Amino acid sequence: MTIERLHVGKRLSQVAIHGDTVYTAGIVAGDPSEDAAGQTRQILASIDGFLAEAGTDKAKIVSCTIWLADIADYGAMNGVWDAWVPAGNSPPRACVEAKLAAPQYKVEIRVVAARR
Amino acid sequence: MTIERLHVGKRLSQVAIHGDTVYTAGIVAGDPSEDAAGQTRQILASIDGFLAEAGTDKAKIVSCTIWLADIADYGAMNGVWDAWVPAGNSPPRACVEAKLAAPQYKVEIRVVAARR
Amino acid sequence: MTIERLHVGKRLSQVAIHGDTVYTAGIVAGDPSEDAAGQTRQILASIDGFLAEAGTDKAKIVSCTIWLADIADYGAMNGVWDAWVPAGNSPPRACVEAKLAAPQYKVEIRVVAARR
Repeated sequence: MTIERLHVGKRLSQVAIHGDTVYTAGIVAGDPSEDAAGQTRQILASIDGFLAEAGTDKAKIVSCTIWLADIADYGAMNGVWDAWVPAGNSPPRACVEAKLAAPQYKVEIRVVAARR
Repeated sequence: MTIERLHVGKRLSQVAIHGDTVYTAGIVAGDPSEDAAGQTRQILASIDGFLAEAGTDKAKIVSCTIWLADIADYGAMNGVWDAWVPAGNSPPRACVEAKLAAPQYKVEIRVVAARR
Repeated sequence: MTIERLHVGKRLSQVAIHGDTVYTAGIVAGDPSEDAAGQTRQILASIDGFLAEAGTDKAKIVSCTIWLADIADYGAMNGVWDAWVPAGNSPPRACVEAKLAAPQYKVEIRVVAARR
């Protein structure tokens, strides 16, 4: 099976593809001045883009981890998530609280997706 | 490879199966009035059920994440875990502290299992 | 597909191999008297060893989770990480804060790697 990497940085890559499985990094908002809902919106848009580049899409996510810097943002994050998640193809998900790499980040999301 | 989902909800599914790999959601106790040991017992029973529906079992778990709302419950959780985990087929595991979606939840467990 | 386990303990195994995918446990330092940089160095050496036993290496990591007991150690951990990660083959990574199983542990790292 092949291994392919997308957006390869010195420290980490945003995506790795192993055979038919696509792994993303923990994605944070490009503009962390927004609130939790806004950051979630940005992150899910980034994930849509990464999955498209990897040849797949949100209907093929098989695992998702969400970290919230403050679990009180659970409702705000879910408001955006629920509108984004494809009916009939919602993924298994875990959502827990954790301080993130920098205090301005309120949300971080990582997914594993099938390619086919 | 096929993708199959079990217990599909609007927000998340409890299980996704991609080829020979089974991913569960982060599972919490159905009755969170119980203590950490009791919640762990409920969760592991749920996982047994989900894995059976997916055509596999606890001897085929290849990765496990455990979140404890209070790491002081490490011993109580492990007492139940150690009795449940199959001799010779214990999975790689990570266990860390994290606040969970609601304060009554003391334990959340997610597994990845092989189907064959 | 075969399932193989390495360093099988009563509670957990350090590694599980399912087909071409290698899962490690959350690895902590053997000598937790060291600081975050020293613990990171020990952990990455352990991971190198486990991956070698599994027939792969750090250039084939496809997902990495790092938990820091204190996110203030982000820079110290990254100093060691950046020197270790193979140019052109950096993995997708998530790094968050979480209290670990015992207070002396400052860093815990888990990886998923491709075998080929």
